[in-house]
Amino acid sequence: MSAGKAVVLLSGGLDSATAMAIARDAGFQVSALSVNYGQRHAAELNSARRSAQAMGAVQFQTMDVDLRAVGKSSLTDDIAVPVDRTVAQMNAAIPSTYVPARNTVLLSCALAFAESIAARDIFVGVNALDYAGYPDCRPEYIAAFETLANLATKAGVEGDRFRIHAPLIQMTKAGIIRRGLDLGVDFRLTSSCYQPAEDGRACGRCDACLLRLAGFAEVGVLDPVQYVQRGNP
Amino acid sequence: MSAGKAVVLLSGGLDSATAMAIARDAGFQVSALSVNYGQRHAAELNSARRSAQAMGAVQFQTMDVDLRAVGKSSLTDDIAVPVDRTVAQMNAAIPSTYVPARNTVLLSCALAFAESIAARDIFVGVNALDYAGYPDCRPEYIAAFETLANLATKAGVEGDRFRIHAPLIQMTKAGIIRRGLDLGVDFRLTSSCYQPAEDGRACGRCDACLLRLAGFAEVGVLDPVQYVQRGNP
Repeated sequence: MSAGKAVVLLSGGLDSATAMAIARDAGFQVSALSVNYGQRHAAELNSARRSAQAMGAVQFQTMDVDLRAVGKSSLTDDIAVPVDRTVAQMNAAIPSTYVPARNTVLLSCALAFAESIAARDIFVGVNALDYAGYPDCRPEYIAAFETLANLATKAGVEGDRFRIHAPLIQMTKAGIIRRGLDLGVDFRLTSSCYQPAEDGRACGRCDACLLRLAGFAEVGVLDPVQYVQRGNP
Repeated sequence: MSAGKAVVLLSGGLDSATAMAIARDAGFQVSALSVNYGQRHAAELNSARRSAQAMGAVQFQTMDVDLRAVGKSSLTDDIAVPVDRTVAQMNAAIPSTYVPARNTVLLSCALAFAESIAARDIFVGVNALDYAGYPDCRPEYIAAFETLANLATKAGVEGDRFRIHAPLIQMTKAGIIRRGLDLGVDFRLTSSCYQPAEDGRACGRCDACLLRLAGFAEVGVLDPVQYVQRGNP
């Protein structure tokens, strides 16, 4: 039995792939949305498409938002991505990979898409623990967006409420990987690296690679993606 | 003396031009942002650029967001724009010109832009009276977005709060026009029509034209833009 339609924001990384598997496991009929916001790691979008197909999404929608026009981030500009940092260093300050208002832009796009296909459930793979430095990954932020969504839309006003699901928000990276493996997520199809090599291999040294490698190490499973080198956080 | 930097969302219509004049009159150093969301009336973007220049914006930034990918609206799709309606008919239901989550997407873009240029004040020309059918034009919606903005951003988290200004929200169209005329807004440069003719003339029959014409009629001033015909709401 279907729980109804859901929109899942799919970045191509392992978090959002797991969020999608959780939505599907909960019985939702999933439409995946990948937003191309000018990130340098466009390989993520191909990963997202493959993950969506592999996991039985009924629809894979892409949307262009030119955040490069206004961004100031090492993910959209020519600022160096930090490498070889410890988790303590990662969490000491908001990192240069922070894209101004990114999750607000992404969730706004998901809300527009959801309203247009009459979905009321939106899943997003944000995580408060591994990204302590990102303000828009916190539970109070997600709650505020849900409030906004129901004031912003025709559906919300008419009493047909939107729900924003962030099922990974309090999970560790290892916990997310375990849950994904339980649900059959094929992590070979995911791409987390902020600066993949031209041949598609992950760098193994940026924050995203280091957190991912540490998560797989904690679970005791080899990360199936290819790396230039496998760093230690 | 400058009140600091502000971002003004400039659509090209008369409301946002007046909001920009109000921001400038309050002493802000104004950066204008026009979001191209695939609306059919792209003439608005040219109007926005001319208005920004005429009113001394320090910057005019455009940003592309492909809402056509997800939209279901007569402003972005091939759905007929309603014409010749009375104000009562306009307000009876959410109109087909409603773009899902539009103001949420626009304000998210403005927030990203504002954070990237270190502006903390965002002006938007939404109006609750003339657009009673649009949920995202209400004061409670604007307040919820301000709350979200301060949870979403590095600046907000660090205590440097964003303020969302909607100075027209409780004004009538006639009141907006009077205020704009007082502040020297050149309304010839504005474009409100949902379906302008190829030569740029406004149709005079869509909701936006009818509300505008009625506003000028109430003020007792001739609307300086060119119309195919001047309808009566």
